[in-house]
Amino acid sequence: MDERFQKQLDFILELDKEKNILRQTHLSDFSRRENDAEHAWHMAVMLYLLREYANEPFDLAKAMMMALIHDVVEIDAGDTYAYDEEAKKTQAEREAKAADRIFGLLPDDQRDALRALFEEYEAQQTPEAHIVRTMDSLQPLLLNDATGGRDWRSHGVKMAQVIKRQEPGRLGSEKIWAFSKALIERNTAEGNIEK
Amino acid sequence: MDERFQKQLDFILELDKEKNILRQTHLSDFSRRENDAEHAWHMAVMLYLLREYANEPFDLAKAMMMALIHDVVEIDAGDTYAYDEEAKKTQAEREAKAADRIFGLLPDDQRDALRALFEEYEAQQTPEAHIVRTMDSLQPLLLNDATGGRDWRSHGVKMAQVIKRQEPGRLGSEKIWAFSKALIERNTAEGNIEK
Repeated sequence: MDERFQKQLDFILELDKEKNILRQTHLSDFSRRENDAEHAWHMAVMLYLLREYANEPFDLAKAMMMALIHDVVEIDAGDTYAYDEEAKKTQAEREAKAADRIFGLLPDDQRDALRALFEEYEAQQTPEAHIVRTMDSLQPLLLNDATGGRDWRSHGVKMAQVIKRQEPGRLGSEKIWAFSKALIERNTAEGNIEK
Repeated sequence: MDERFQKQLDFILELDKEKNILRQTHLSDFSRRENDAEHAWHMAVMLYLLREYANEPFDLAKAMMMALIHDVVEIDAGDTYAYDEEAKKTQAEREAKAADRIFGLLPDDQRDALRALFEEYEAQQTPEAHIVRTMDSLQPLLLNDATGGRDWRSHGVKMAQVIKRQEPGRLGSEKIWAFSKALIERNTAEGNIEK
């Protein structure tokens, strides 16, 4: 087998580890925590179904791939909880090192293409990065709401923290942001999120 | 909130159940069985990375979405093991009924679009359907190979069965089929697959 194909398969097998990276969010039935692969799958489907609400036109295949691989670095760097301020201080450095190793398994052209997609997402300057961010925020919001806010309650999360995390999603879709804001306010009124 | 958006969100939340539909295949570390959402995520990334090996040009976003939702019906119909001949007799009927209910949660236009994608995959007459089938076959093959064929061994699977399942993938990619065939022959020589 040629070297290029072998490298692609090595990367594909490495990706399997992402199924063991657990997020803080539980599934909607609260049976267990969600993993990164499931989260990314859900986001990619949402991009397709909710694309009519994007503020700007975007490239669907590019955005889907960006969503599918945006957490790959967590294979090495682990999941950083959105409300863990200490862990977030070292997050960029840990993730850059992970990107070097993991994307480095690929042939050079695909290593560069995926690294660029990952960095484009982090930089948040394009329509694709914006709408992927919107889904990255909305997806756990829907799951948290479905469980009656159990994840927010167990972490004692405050409304200002949820707003801070969710509001950048408005760059991708004002419509979805309006929905998310109302959902956060309702959960705060219900005591699932602290005031 | 308008009715259209509510229907889309209802479907998106329903999809969460796919994370609890277990396949026969184990993860590469053999820690547990893989679920449908993880499998679909892996396939979609593979479509992007291995698209240069497709026999025919194809629409990447369409193929990715086809892969992402091809097992949605299993929320109601359950996973039918590729080598369970009895269960396969009732599979089409169970899955059609599931498709009615689950895609029926969506607004009419998206219900029809996703149902059409699902049926296009089943019918296997287009370049997208062919290449998605290739990934649907290759993905568990790689995992099975990574575990030293433990899933094949525990089910006493025979080479002819694996060939029968994998060979339709050649319609999507002759290159990947040649690789898969060699992998199956090696695993048979090693005793992981029965002759």
